[in-house]
Amino acid sequence: MDDFVLTPWESRGRIDYNRLVERFGLRPMDGPMKGRLREAAGQDHYMVRRGVFFAHRDLDMILESHRSGDGFFVYTGRGPSGQTHIGHLVPWVFARWLQERFGVRVYFQLTDDEKFYHSSTLTLEDTARLAEENARDFAALGFDPLKTHIIRDTVDMGALYPLAARVAKRITLSTARAAFGFGNDTNIGMVFYTALQSAPCLLEEGPVLIPLGVDQDPHFRLTRDVAPLLGHPKPALIHNIMAPGLGGPDSKMSAADPNSAIYTTDEPAAINRKIKRHAFSGGRADIDEHRRLGGDTAVDVSYQYLRMFFEPDDAILEGIRDGYESGRMLTGELKQELIERVTGFMEAHRARREDVDLGEFWFDHDEYKGRMRR
Amino acid sequence: MDDFVLTPWESRGRIDYNRLVERFGLRPMDGPMKGRLREAAGQDHYMVRRGVFFAHRDLDMILESHRSGDGFFVYTGRGPSGQTHIGHLVPWVFARWLQERFGVRVYFQLTDDEKFYHSSTLTLEDTARLAEENARDFAALGFDPLKTHIIRDTVDMGALYPLAARVAKRITLSTARAAFGFGNDTNIGMVFYTALQSAPCLLEEGPVLIPLGVDQDPHFRLTRDVAPLLGHPKPALIHNIMAPGLGGPDSKMSAADPNSAIYTTDEPAAINRKIKRHAFSGGRADIDEHRRLGGDTAVDVSYQYLRMFFEPDDAILEGIRDGYESGRMLTGELKQELIERVTGFMEAHRARREDVDLGEFWFDHDEYKGRMRR
Repeated sequence: MDDFVLTPWESRGRIDYNRLVERFGLRPMDGPMKGRLREAAGQDHYMVRRGVFFAHRDLDMILESHRSGDGFFVYTGRGPSGQTHIGHLVPWVFARWLQERFGVRVYFQLTDDEKFYHSSTLTLEDTARLAEENARDFAALGFDPLKTHIIRDTVDMGALYPLAARVAKRITLSTARAAFGFGNDTNIGMVFYTALQSAPCLLEEGPVLIPLGVDQDPHFRLTRDVAPLLGHPKPALIHNIMAPGLGGPDSKMSAADPNSAIYTTDEPAAINRKIKRHAFSGGRADIDEHRRLGGDTAVDVSYQYLRMFFEPDDAILEGIRDGYESGRMLTGELKQELIERVTGFMEAHRARREDVDLGEFWFDHDEYKGRMRR
Repeated sequence: MDDFVLTPWESRGRIDYNRLVERFGLRPMDGPMKGRLREAAGQDHYMVRRGVFFAHRDLDMILESHRSGDGFFVYTGRGPSGQTHIGHLVPWVFARWLQERFGVRVYFQLTDDEKFYHSSTLTLEDTARLAEENARDFAALGFDPLKTHIIRDTVDMGALYPLAARVAKRITLSTARAAFGFGNDTNIGMVFYTALQSAPCLLEEGPVLIPLGVDQDPHFRLTRDVAPLLGHPKPALIHNIMAPGLGGPDSKMSAADPNSAIYTTDEPAAINRKIKRHAFSGGRADIDEHRRLGGDTAVDVSYQYLRMFFEPDDAILEGIRDGYESGRMLTGELKQELIERVTGFMEAHRARREDVDLGEFWFDHDEYKGRMRR
């Protein structure tokens, strides 16, 4: 029984990732694949180790291209519908690691058009402004400005559109409807949009690796069908699980509810309040019961945030898990661990965020054309 | 009985223009309307006088805007699927006259993307090359380079896309399907494209007048629904009949058959041959019968080309009509009249075409933005 729905624009029910691997036809990030990635990178990444990146398509092809000296490039993105929350940071931090380990070029696409098409309230000016906010968060993660190019759809359409047009010509209305479930009342911007999300895959000749939330997979299933017809390799993907909302494992972070997520723009007091009041707890009904039975880390959002993002050290994380599951650590103490780490991360992040010179990162059409001619 | 079909991409059967006025909900260019246009322009145009421009939408609003000093701008275009033939020149020549009489700015859109989406053989490089060929023909008609801006979709998408996106958000899939008859196998580029043909209507705040072949009307029916939602006046239209192919009143000019049309790139020998061999004649079975009954100018393509385009002088045209219908003038003589005029026009046109500095005419995004800020 599939009792959950996951599309680029909708998430309902608790996602069963094993079922999703089957339903989408993904390859699981199993032990041997993790080993090959670790070997190629010369290092482990805790998000891979812990199954935050749980599936892939053709990652082996990317590693082979790297091994043979043909290389690859990285592409990820963001639909700027609001401020950046920690769920968004997962694939970006991983992209940053890929750049550092493999010395690769990274393209980051801000789909201000998509979020305009999809929203009943946001104007193009709103999504353009949010795109710049999100771009700051991305650049602040430490990307190399010489090898990192931030694309804004409405600004950089001159470069994207000829690529998108080649994709769009190969996608029929019925294919798009089947992939995304468009109805008669879907606007034609949304219908076309998937071609624009495909376009950055064609920016370079070589293979591309895309770290992404698994909800974005349907777009690239289409791209993978089309790319070979255009003389390009199929884009490779590595999928992360969706970070739960503060409300619990079945909840999601929603721009409509500021208490559903922690944003990079939240002040320390807000972070403290949100985690204390709103982070779903795996603790028991009272302290006695908790001491006796221990907490449930599988549903505890504070623990999951530490695991997914804020505590890279396995030994420390293991200590926390053991303390909480054995009942020695109470919910308030677990929350305090998260608050300290989030506050520390955000303080440093906000300083970098304000220092970022976005001019160094914006996609430059002339630089791009010059580079492609060489 | 409607036994003809006319869409932006298809024409079947003999078009009944009276029925088309009803079917599309157009306003006929009747005597009073022609009078108002003549009065505002301070001059007549033979294409209006003769019903080549046979219908309109809101032309009265444009003339009122001109009278009140608010002005208007002009927009027309071309889908670059082949070289320019004389059917294409009709709305362009009229746009040139509007610029001269009203001192207005003219935008010309070359939809290289549309023709790529629609064709099974043309690449984007092909349509971009044809766009430049067509641009030469347009500019050679004598437009003022300071007030005339040639847009190429794939080149100027940076300026067009934010406007197109606002339109696209207001057009549902079912509306687009109803307007254009898209099937499940239509590609998503075609589905989105109508928003791009709308976009130039939004380049300026004021009202726009669009001279166009009546087959393009469905695009602007959608634009007219959407524009007021975006704070713009409905675009006004003035429609010309479709020029028949050389094969006769029911035939069309087709890129697939070079003998179906006269192109601006045809040498004098080709013009001579095409008209003599391929121009459908309204003459009789033999000379005796022709002398007795006279020719039929209603179906004679040579006469129709003179009427639509090549003989602006009513008295001379009337002399030709009278001569042919009375049987005094034979088909060969009528064809010779056309050959002389086409050859003369094309010789001068080709010289201007080669002298054109397209750099003066290409849409300049920076110039446009500067102008809009003022």
